[in-house]
Amino acid sequence: MPGPNYTQRRSRLIRAFKTPGVDALLVTGEANIRYLTGFTGDSSWLFLSKSATVLISDSRYTTQIADECSGLDVDIRDARKLIDDAAADVIKKAKARKVGFEASHLTVAQHAALVTKVTTAELVSTSGLTERLREVKDKWELGQIRAAVYMAERGIGVVRSSLQADQTEREIRYILEAAMRSFGATGPGFEPIVGVGPTAALPHAHAGDRRVRESSILLVDWGAATESGYRSDITRTFVTGKFTKQMRTVYETVLKAQKKAIAAIKPGAKCKAVDAIARKIIADAGFEKYFGHGLGHGFGLQIHESVRMSPLSEQELEPGMVVTVEPGIYLPGNFGVRIEDDILVTNDGHEVLTSVPREFDDAIVEILA
Amino acid sequence: MPGPNYTQRRSRLIRAFKTPGVDALLVTGEANIRYLTGFTGDSSWLFLSKSATVLISDSRYTTQIADECSGLDVDIRDARKLIDDAAADVIKKAKARKVGFEASHLTVAQHAALVTKVTTAELVSTSGLTERLREVKDKWELGQIRAAVYMAERGIGVVRSSLQADQTEREIRYILEAAMRSFGATGPGFEPIVGVGPTAALPHAHAGDRRVRESSILLVDWGAATESGYRSDITRTFVTGKFTKQMRTVYETVLKAQKKAIAAIKPGAKCKAVDAIARKIIADAGFEKYFGHGLGHGFGLQIHESVRMSPLSEQELEPGMVVTVEPGIYLPGNFGVRIEDDILVTNDGHEVLTSVPREFDDAIVEILA
Repeated sequence: MPGPNYTQRRSRLIRAFKTPGVDALLVTGEANIRYLTGFTGDSSWLFLSKSATVLISDSRYTTQIADECSGLDVDIRDARKLIDDAAADVIKKAKARKVGFEASHLTVAQHAALVTKVTTAELVSTSGLTERLREVKDKWELGQIRAAVYMAERGIGVVRSSLQADQTEREIRYILEAAMRSFGATGPGFEPIVGVGPTAALPHAHAGDRRVRESSILLVDWGAATESGYRSDITRTFVTGKFTKQMRTVYETVLKAQKKAIAAIKPGAKCKAVDAIARKIIADAGFEKYFGHGLGHGFGLQIHESVRMSPLSEQELEPGMVVTVEPGIYLPGNFGVRIEDDILVTNDGHEVLTSVPREFDDAIVEILA
Repeated sequence: MPGPNYTQRRSRLIRAFKTPGVDALLVTGEANIRYLTGFTGDSSWLFLSKSATVLISDSRYTTQIADECSGLDVDIRDARKLIDDAAADVIKKAKARKVGFEASHLTVAQHAALVTKVTTAELVSTSGLTERLREVKDKWELGQIRAAVYMAERGIGVVRSSLQADQTEREIRYILEAAMRSFGATGPGFEPIVGVGPTAALPHAHAGDRRVRESSILLVDWGAATESGYRSDITRTFVTGKFTKQMRTVYETVLKAQKKAIAAIKPGAKCKAVDAIARKIIADAGFEKYFGHGLGHGFGLQIHESVRMSPLSEQELEPGMVVTVEPGIYLPGNFGVRIEDDILVTNDGHEVLTSVPREFDDAIVEILA
């Protein structure tokens, strides 16, 4: 399959200049720059207008840029020049008059410095122009995400098949990361969460020293990253020993909430409406206060991207968006259950990209204590 | 050894309020929050004044905060409330009048939103207040950094002893990461750079598919992270086969530049002066244009912290600072050499915290091709 069409992506972005009324954009978000050029380094900015595309970088990256972004104009500075001085020079040379900056990727301090350097153009605040493009994945991106799902799912297969009562959360995390790499991942898509019992009740726990035998609940939230930078994001909660009635009730409630929310995913569905479906099922079962986070989020080059599937999001889903659906119930000091899949919005509904079985019976792993 | 004294750190920070003239500070930088409270999560802000210390977070973190920051006041919001709304409420309740924000850790967009929410106080831009404290490491932090150095050095020992002609950069990276973990690291301190020949000429290369046998030069830039979040940062360039006269000249030039620069490290030395020593030696040998980056940087909870050892830095070194010294020469398409050690500024000079041998003869690794 041919690689990403960076020229087309940049053309689309230039068409989006109309709304903020700028004739150029200074792109400073790292993932945005990667999306628009293929460049994988840092400390670099992209200047983009109808007549000029310039990657503003430094000499550490000269060769890498030539390799990764063949044909792109570059402005390379040495260690004696600051990036905002370089940007001011590029803006002046391009004769740009109204230059947008990314308000979500420039700090107040960077902006204050830039304003003093750029004397030939007006700087205009813009919001999410590139992120908006990135919300809808193209064919190539979907291929990368599918690959990241494959690596993650093969990885959890190794964990499951090698699970033992004496393993610590940390050991399981390392086995998982090594396994995903053996299936082609460059690494995990984010720090994997591996939580036993009370640790599973912390939605964002770090894997620690708790052992599998200490509880019947083991939660794993993991994903792979491809060399191209795309990610997957899955959660499964395993039952590794005798379970209580409450554990089963919580599991079945989360699963029902997740299935019903996924079933509602289609073009035009409002994010807050999808969130509300899951939230109501959990509330009706009496667990409202134990589900405090949003239902899910977009992902791709970053593990959290817009779209946000939250009670506050008025946004509507569109074909090509890829989101997680991950309700959870967390009982502090006891255990937590979360079930998360990756969903592609299609022209007439959705496709679940992930395929690790998730019924309660599927979650049971027989291990000798 | 007792853990970090967060109360003392916060008291010091409050004393630093005088200069910007604020009576409270909204800390939004993740590493700053960790430094001041021990909290290891994200999506949270810290409000700090003489009379109140409040961690503004969400329900995903309730239990984790109770574990990690016992005794700290918290303001927990649910998925329906935005963090800036929560911050505005905390500021109002604390009756703060002039509230500093961290200009380097608040984006233009976050600031614009916050200004509309905070109606009971003036928001004042501040710069590097917590970073300034973090520049000088306390005893406990030095212990953590020494541990991170130990993990990294044991790790490279494994790589060196298992080096083979057919290994790829990527394979070496994974062996190194696994080895550091086996010595107690929670992971690498940053994405390790492993570069053979032309890849070593890219100062920030990603480990790829090049094999050791393809060149006589192998550059590894790596470090470990401790569970407490502290890092180490070392580079060694290995000679894995027949070497050219140029390779030896480049290596000896970099080593000389590094040694002379390290020798100049003591309290009161200007960062730009130390940088200039290394830069002059490399220039005198005719390689000026092949050393484009700064000489080094502070590190600790983050891999790049202030102090910057660059030609632009007027800052003076102080006892307790820990910096890297890492000159390099990069010959595009051919090879690169960088040598990097971690240096503690002491009361009367410096201490080199790293101990991997670095003489040219030490760099030679015998492998069967």
